[in-house]
Amino acid sequence: MTIHRFAPTVWYNTIGSHPPALRIASGDTVVTETLDSAGVDKDGNRRASPSNPMNGPIFVEDAEPGDALRVSIDAMRPIRATGWTRNVLATNVVEPDAVRNLPPSEVVNWAIDRNAQTARLDPPVAGLEHFVLPLEPMIGCFGVAPSLGQAISTATSGEFGGNMDYRLLCPGSVVWFPVAVPGALFHVGDCHAAQGDGEIVGTGIETCYEVTVTLTVEKRSSQVWPRAETADDIIAIGNARPLDQALQHATTEMLNWLVADYGLDKVAASHLLGQVVRYDIGNVFDPAYTVACRVAKRWLPPRR
Amino acid sequence: MTIHRFAPTVWYNTIGSHPPALRIASGDTVVTETLDSAGVDKDGNRRASPSNPMNGPIFVEDAEPGDALRVSIDAMRPIRATGWTRNVLATNVVEPDAVRNLPPSEVVNWAIDRNAQTARLDPPVAGLEHFVLPLEPMIGCFGVAPSLGQAISTATSGEFGGNMDYRLLCPGSVVWFPVAVPGALFHVGDCHAAQGDGEIVGTGIETCYEVTVTLTVEKRSSQVWPRAETADDIIAIGNARPLDQALQHATTEMLNWLVADYGLDKVAASHLLGQVVRYDIGNVFDPAYTVACRVAKRWLPPRR
Amino acid sequence: MTIHRFAPTVWYNTIGSHPPALRIASGDTVVTETLDSAGVDKDGNRRASPSNPMNGPIFVEDAEPGDALRVSIDAMRPIRATGWTRNVLATNVVEPDAVRNLPPSEVVNWAIDRNAQTARLDPPVAGLEHFVLPLEPMIGCFGVAPSLGQAISTATSGEFGGNMDYRLLCPGSVVWFPVAVPGALFHVGDCHAAQGDGEIVGTGIETCYEVTVTLTVEKRSSQVWPRAETADDIIAIGNARPLDQALQHATTEMLNWLVADYGLDKVAASHLLGQVVRYDIGNVFDPAYTVACRVAKRWLPPRR
Amino acid sequence: MTIHRFAPTVWYNTIGSHPPALRIASGDTVVTETLDSAGVDKDGNRRASPSNPMNGPIFVEDAEPGDALRVSIDAMRPIRATGWTRNVLATNVVEPDAVRNLPPSEVVNWAIDRNAQTARLDPPVAGLEHFVLPLEPMIGCFGVAPSLGQAISTATSGEFGGNMDYRLLCPGSVVWFPVAVPGALFHVGDCHAAQGDGEIVGTGIETCYEVTVTLTVEKRSSQVWPRAETADDIIAIGNARPLDQALQHATTEMLNWLVADYGLDKVAASHLLGQVVRYDIGNVFDPAYTVACRVAKRWLPPRR
Repeated sequence: MTIHRFAPTVWYNTIGSHPPALRIASGDTVVTETLDSAGVDKDGNRRASPSNPMNGPIFVEDAEPGDALRVSIDAMRPIRATGWTRNVLATNVVEPDAVRNLPPSEVVNWAIDRNAQTARLDPPVAGLEHFVLPLEPMIGCFGVAPSLGQAISTATSGEFGGNMDYRLLCPGSVVWFPVAVPGALFHVGDCHAAQGDGEIVGTGIETCYEVTVTLTVEKRSSQVWPRAETADDIIAIGNARPLDQALQHATTEMLNWLVADYGLDKVAASHLLGQVVRYDIGNVFDPAYTVACRVAKRWLPPRR
Repeated sequence: MTIHRFAPTVWYNTIGSHPPALRIASGDTVVTETLDSAGVDKDGNRRASPSNPMNGPIFVEDAEPGDALRVSIDAMRPIRATGWTRNVLATNVVEPDAVRNLPPSEVVNWAIDRNAQTARLDPPVAGLEHFVLPLEPMIGCFGVAPSLGQAISTATSGEFGGNMDYRLLCPGSVVWFPVAVPGALFHVGDCHAAQGDGEIVGTGIETCYEVTVTLTVEKRSSQVWPRAETADDIIAIGNARPLDQALQHATTEMLNWLVADYGLDKVAASHLLGQVVRYDIGNVFDPAYTVACRVAKRWLPPRR
Repeated sequence: MTIHRFAPTVWYNTIGSHPPALRIASGDTVVTETLDSAGVDKDGNRRASPSNPMNGPIFVEDAEPGDALRVSIDAMRPIRATGWTRNVLATNVVEPDAVRNLPPSEVVNWAIDRNAQTARLDPPVAGLEHFVLPLEPMIGCFGVAPSLGQAISTATSGEFGGNMDYRLLCPGSVVWFPVAVPGALFHVGDCHAAQGDGEIVGTGIETCYEVTVTLTVEKRSSQVWPRAETADDIIAIGNARPLDQALQHATTEMLNWLVADYGLDKVAASHLLGQVVRYDIGNVFDPAYTVACRVAKRWLPPRR
Repeated sequence: MTIHRFAPTVWYNTIGSHPPALRIASGDTVVTETLDSAGVDKDGNRRASPSNPMNGPIFVEDAEPGDALRVSIDAMRPIRATGWTRNVLATNVVEPDAVRNLPPSEVVNWAIDRNAQTARLDPPVAGLEHFVLPLEPMIGCFGVAPSLGQAISTATSGEFGGNMDYRLLCPGSVVWFPVAVPGALFHVGDCHAAQGDGEIVGTGIETCYEVTVTLTVEKRSSQVWPRAETADDIIAIGNARPLDQALQHATTEMLNWLVADYGLDKVAASHLLGQVVRYDIGNVFDPAYTVACRVAKRWLPPRR
């Protein structure tokens, strides 16, 4: 289990079958510094084009189509003293008639205090002097190369992952992506220091992180959509529009997971989901929206 | 502040301008026993037609169109030893192709242990022997008469409330409905002993509760959609299809609330929502879906 | 077969189980003058509240729940020299970001020339001097009382009909509504002198018409949604949001119709629909949108 | 104006920045034989992988990002005596509960009579003995390479075109695509001998055509979405889910077109669209749905 320090020199604005920038064995760990979503590095230099330039791809040996790539998010360390957000609700998250009265959206700066592990608007905004947020880092956009040789904009998402902007894809979580090409071709970037549900101003607090992930191939997976696990929950993720369809994907993936791995029939799985499921919303800003179907582990039967 | 014990003799399957069954003063408390959503009472007798027969309407003096009716959910006491659920995911929450493989949905019984405050499938279901749920009571369907003399089926919801099936509308919460007719005409029923997000099997654990609510008129409200408050959060609720539109209503209502009552301009309100909002899903089963836009009070400036 | 001249003195802004204003036998014809959608009559006097006040309800003897009410639109005669429209696209039919740049929407006047059977903007609008529209009258809102004692705003639509704003519901067409209450309780109003698909400025050319309809009870119908027939086509109508769901209702209703009345199995009906179906959009402005699933009669097998 | 006969030896299942297979001058004509959507050629040999393998890309000299590629569909000649369709409605076009009762969908054969210019099911299907369709050829999937180096599956569509399955993209029509990369990189395939709106069985009559197109660069276009023109109409096309969003894109594109090229302000353009617009549905089967916003030329002011 090797630890690779990976410093990319080229970044991609799509997730696809680009030439691998790094080859690793299954189970290896990668430490890499990400640009912010505008392509700016920790020193304030623009290194790549917006939006969401990706580090990678990383070729993981033995990964084949039909496998899953297990991504353990081991750590995220903030590496810049500033972040930025947009400052007005996105036009698609308010009623159409309310759009007429929204002010124009601008980019504003946040100060990140790495000792206190907090972020605050800088300069301050009237009425929000008290608004000092704890850092709750998360990966906004990551995934593996999609099928058919596709290269998909990092503005959106799909079965392969992508720009899901989901809070629980954070240090301590494990994520599984369905492998569609040899080597899986893992991409990562677009880290946020904090973000509400839905990414409804169109950004989290966009900044640079040193990300540590351990990538492991799991053979012969039946998964179609991204899956995740936290200390407390298992999670299936769907990406689509409208939210209704994203929810259908996430729920179907969770149903299949409960049947395949936890030995429940569809009636038992329905009972469990019906009374204890939680739905979270990743983003409602991008071309594809993200819904997470979450079940607390305390309610699961033993895994088979 | 009088306490009224209200035992209805007629129930409605619509929320509308029906003849008042009770008249109370603003600030009075009402204690009433609800039927389950199938119209069956605590003794197992069918008293009304499904679905979701309502106790009421209750005329609250001084309530006028343009006011808000504040509903404090003071207590919910389980009054029956059984509940029921459906046992298969609703067809609209899975991918269309997955519907082909769903078993038929049937009604099954739950035992409610009022001492232990738990519910369990009775008879048990293989693989779910461990599945003993704490009672987490909530009101599935309640609200006030809509405008224009409308009478709306209790299967659905709207600006007036209705069948929202949202977990946090539970004891300890306060809900505000926009008053559209003189007296507000409050209706209540369809209590659940527990329910996951989305009510995705088409039911919570359907049973009878003794509900205690205190109804207070607040004059000259600017609210359009239901609002709520828990110990920790303020909540705006939107009811529509698809979920995207319900989310738009909820977000717009919250934006307007933050501006009107908390003194934030739209930029400051956007910052707050953008980084700390939480979205919950009420139901994704009924003709109108329900989305809640929730903000932790810890992030709010002082109320003006 | 009696002809009734019906001059209402009260109008409703909901479709529901109101006291009948007229009782007729099945097969009778009714001639009635409608108000415009703002409640203004042919003489320019406001007689009822907006929007879409309804003439009716008309009780049709022998109509029982489970029957269909056949509505032959025999004639529509314009009875006012003016109409009105709104003048800017509705905010929900353009991209959310484009709403920022829409001018405010205002009401403007049209001159209706009953000799030439045309309508034109009055005063003229620059660039549209040539825009003289032939009158293509249609009924915007009509239907029968819904089930459960519901009373539904004439701003919206459902299985019972309502505000569908579909161009082909015009003189020469026949429409069937599913009867939900004894007597069917037919309502009619909101006539348009012309309208594009979608009613995307929020109005057609709103004016007053003398409408002649013949109402006939057809016993034991299996229909769930409105159906229609023109000289060339049969049509099934779905009302819901989003358009996707309205299309699902319309397609399912057409599939069931082809199977029940034309002797096709689901495979044959699928072949027919797959290669010759046409979809029309009624309105995309109201709370429920309208989609029509249309099949040319030339492709139908003989009716059984 | 050269005529190129283009016989590809490699096909792509994505539309993207693949190596050009042919370079032509603006204004040149290309004649090429397409495979059917399953990758089978006119002789019944599988030459490429499903679905929708593309001929191309064709590099058109002088095409630069910001231009439009004008595609005149000069002719489509059927080159195979057979086609195929699926035979059951897609699960996403019927109500979710109706999916339970759909039979499984299978592939069936059609005989194409190139003398009579007709197609019929072969073997016949009971009840559809009369169902002999005139050939109404159309191109299901075509477009230009998208921005950012993306390569998008030919199962879907976007601003760049793609799998739109719209009946009026047929011989005699002109289509404009927004150019995103140097040379435009035109792709074409997936021709249908006939198809209903929505492609609701998941296919048209899939077969091989010889397609003749003339490709011309128009400099400095403001278009964002595909545009088209027939003998009678101008058309703007939106591709997205749900249909509501596709309709928003199409309507916004048409509004901008009327303002930029026909000298109307937004009020005048709204009047015109409001009273005469027609909406057509391309497909409601693929990941992105297609809506066309269509205006008859008879209503347009002179083009500036």
